[in-house]
Amino acid sequence: MDTLLANPGSTERTRVRRIPELAVRDRSALHAVLDAGLVGHLAVTDPTGQPYVLPVAYARVDETVLVHGSSASRLFRLCAAGVPVCFTVTELDGLVLARSAFESSMNYRSAMVLGHCSVLHGRTKELALRQISNHLMPGRWEEIRKPSAQELKATAVLELPLDECSLKVSADGPDDPPEDLGLPVWAGRLPLVRQWGEPVPAEDLDPEHARIPAYIDLWRQQIS
Amino acid sequence: MDTLLANPGSTERTRVRRIPELAVRDRSALHAVLDAGLVGHLAVTDPTGQPYVLPVAYARVDETVLVHGSSASRLFRLCAAGVPVCFTVTELDGLVLARSAFESSMNYRSAMVLGHCSVLHGRTKELALRQISNHLMPGRWEEIRKPSAQELKATAVLELPLDECSLKVSADGPDDPPEDLGLPVWAGRLPLVRQWGEPVPAEDLDPEHARIPAYIDLWRQQIS
Repeated sequence: MDTLLANPGSTERTRVRRIPELAVRDRSALHAVLDAGLVGHLAVTDPTGQPYVLPVAYARVDETVLVHGSSASRLFRLCAAGVPVCFTVTELDGLVLARSAFESSMNYRSAMVLGHCSVLHGRTKELALRQISNHLMPGRWEEIRKPSAQELKATAVLELPLDECSLKVSADGPDDPPEDLGLPVWAGRLPLVRQWGEPVPAEDLDPEHARIPAYIDLWRQQIS
Repeated sequence: MDTLLANPGSTERTRVRRIPELAVRDRSALHAVLDAGLVGHLAVTDPTGQPYVLPVAYARVDETVLVHGSSASRLFRLCAAGVPVCFTVTELDGLVLARSAFESSMNYRSAMVLGHCSVLHGRTKELALRQISNHLMPGRWEEIRKPSAQELKATAVLELPLDECSLKVSADGPDDPPEDLGLPVWAGRLPLVRQWGEPVPAEDLDPEHARIPAYIDLWRQQIS
């Protein structure tokens, strides 16, 4: 059994109500899920009451999540105005093949953060962009051209504190009731594995710069 | 260039405003992304204006998305009450390593559906549960124990029509401006590959049923 009862920064709104055994209390476990995720989903509700969910690049830094997007994006402008948001990162880890439809499920790690974003400016904003880059592409920022003043203006960076959070982790095999154990069907779990494939050079890459950077090899070794 | 200008079931609310070149008009492309996804993110806003985003199992059937969850879930009950929801499926396909921070990005396919859910009952609900199972685990439903009346009662199944949708697909290498092409840095893309790993038998699996079903081998061949 590798699911834990717990809840980091839990409130009545984020208390895991369904299957509370899957809630995880450990703060470092929350950080680990946010650090392992590649894409987050940011939800915001417009003035008519319509929610929207957008995939976003992000980084977890200390007790905050940093998110970037276009300054001109209607939904980013909504978030920047300080309305309530929800940010969720889910990594699917596999399928749980139980003997019944009801017990069949997925293994996953999902972190949810509720709160209000604030907009970053100046040096803090530039640092946040580097931190978001380092989350997805560690080592890359030092090599590439940094944002110009115009590019910075076109980019919005939001900070969301990890104050009100929940975490659910499901990592087990099936939990069939005793009366189903004799059913004539294979049961177990099927892990989902993610890997970085072979790097594909840009068509306009100068042959002089064709050597794959060492950090890409590192990324390829470290992903699970 | 494999990103297309387009938008299936587009309205003013779902028109892709940012980088409209990434919008995809083709209806079959929308279906393909929904069919390839494994987990969706469903957003709903509570009466206080707080949005929530939850990972959910789903299936696309014809021009609808079917989602299931616990009948007792507060957020599922909100959705069932017919408030506006947003359902987003995002598959990350890789990293785009440009010569500048600003042009660096991710390749992904993301489908977004806005609308109102309706609750399924009776035979339609049972059929929908089979369809959701078949989306993730094709072939499995025929082998496993079907839901009991009590299990059906504990499960809510929602249907969301694909009326108001958007789709963004980004699948290219970097698009650096001419003045950056001479920078001394490798550029290209790094694909993200997902694979089903080796099946792990349940600890309580009867040795008599230890043979891995053929459909699992098929899943393992077909995932990309």
